Amino acid sequence: MLQKTNRLTLVEQVALQMESLIESGKWTVGMRIPAEPELMAELNVSRNTLREAIRALIHAGLLKTKQGDGTYVCSSSALGVVLQKRILRSDTLQTLEVRHALEREAAHLAAQRRTSDEAQELLLQLERCEAAAANGDIDRFVTEDIRLHQSIVTSSHNEVLIELYDHIAEASQDSITSMTRYEVDTEFIEIHRQLVEAIVEQDAARAAAAVHRYISQSKAVLVAEGGDQL
Amino acid sequence: MLQKTNRLTLVEQVALQMESLIESGKWTVGMRIPAEPELMAELNVSRNTLREAIRALIHAGLLKTKQGDGTYVCSSSALGVVLQKRILRSDTLQTLEVRHALEREAAHLAAQRRTSDEAQELLLQLERCEAAAANGDIDRFVTEDIRLHQSIVTSSHNEVLIELYDHIAEASQDSITSMTRYEVDTEFIEIHRQLVEAIVEQDAARAAAAVHRYISQSKAVLVAEGGDQL
Repeated sequence: MLQKTNRLTLVEQVALQMESLIESGKWTVGMRIPAEPELMAELNVSRNTLREAIRALIHAGLLKTKQGDGTYVCSSSALGVVLQKRILRSDTLQTLEVRHALEREAAHLAAQRRTSDEAQELLLQLERCEAAAANGDIDRFVTEDIRLHQSIVTSSHNEVLIELYDHIAEASQDSITSMTRYEVDTEFIEIHRQLVEAIVEQDAARAAAAVHRYISQSKAVLVAEGGDQL
Repeated sequence: MLQKTNRLTLVEQVALQMESLIESGKWTVGMRIPAEPELMAELNVSRNTLREAIRALIHAGLLKTKQGDGTYVCSSSALGVVLQKRILRSDTLQTLEVRHALEREAAHLAAQRRTSDEAQELLLQLERCEAAAANGDIDRFVTEDIRLHQSIVTSSHNEVLIELYDHIAEASQDSITSMTRYEVDTEFIEIHRQLVEAIVEQDAARAAAAVHRYISQSKAVLVAEGGDQL
């Protein structure tokens, strides 16, 4: 599984190999990595070299050592870790604007590229949102709404956009969730129906316009709440 | 300048301290960091600890060791490094779509938030683009065009958006530059004038529409070139 490395930048090479095991999903989040002797044998490196490489990945936020219990994978993406850090020191409005930029482009592209299966899935997911809203189940609505937006972004078939969106959405979930609680009104639901229908009907301009409408609504809610502002 | 650290996660703390020196600009790109004895004394840590911390930052892409010459700062942002890596393994169209998502939102926000000074600067920068195009100086046009887009993004006053855009633009400069060579026609220049004028006149919808027009043009050029496609 692991390739032997040459001596030139040994620590760095070992770190890169472990990083690619993580990013490729061979080492999954939550998993304990193999014990030192096993890794030393597999990589043909000394304990010191291995430990330095592991520390580099701890610094990158991919691994975490639990006292007396070994080393665990705690994130699958170095990009996710740094974006998360960056989002944490930003205010809600700025993060929301970046999310919206990505959502608008995603809606536009999804209208052009969604498969038939994706169109079906979007309609189903929309119905789940509407059912939750109809039942007044806000927690459920928040969950289904997040899934709907992720499905739209996935239907854009743009991997860079999908990855950026997922990380930023994950990092800003709390602030967005608290905001959504104020938004489950009829108009908000209606805009989501327009958005999904536009994507299903492959009308890119109408899809982007629908995103623009709920953006304006969300920002109005944020401003009305007196949240952190520019 | 550097704070003494406690022993719990010494390597990690030293790495974080050096990282913040870099990200805050106290250690600038291209600079050689202080010699080991100096850093050991300042941080009150052993050579091994210091070296491990430095290796963590080498892995993060912030530092680089030159054989027999010391360690240099090679990037000011961990986010920049990971985004750069991510963009390098993406195709041009995907990267272009993400750039455009950010440019459209930036144009929209710039129209709402640009200061009078920024409006003046945008008009000046537009004139530099037009002059270069009028002289048939393509290299010059490419440079001035990049600056114009950066000025627009800066006028959005959204720090997250600015940072993401700068890193993605830097990472995709080569592909965009080669594409721009095909685009310096009258219509392309005219769209840029519409964009800047819309921002100056604080017409957010018209600014976003202008971005949409040059996006469509750029994508058409990319497709016509038969570049890498979805």
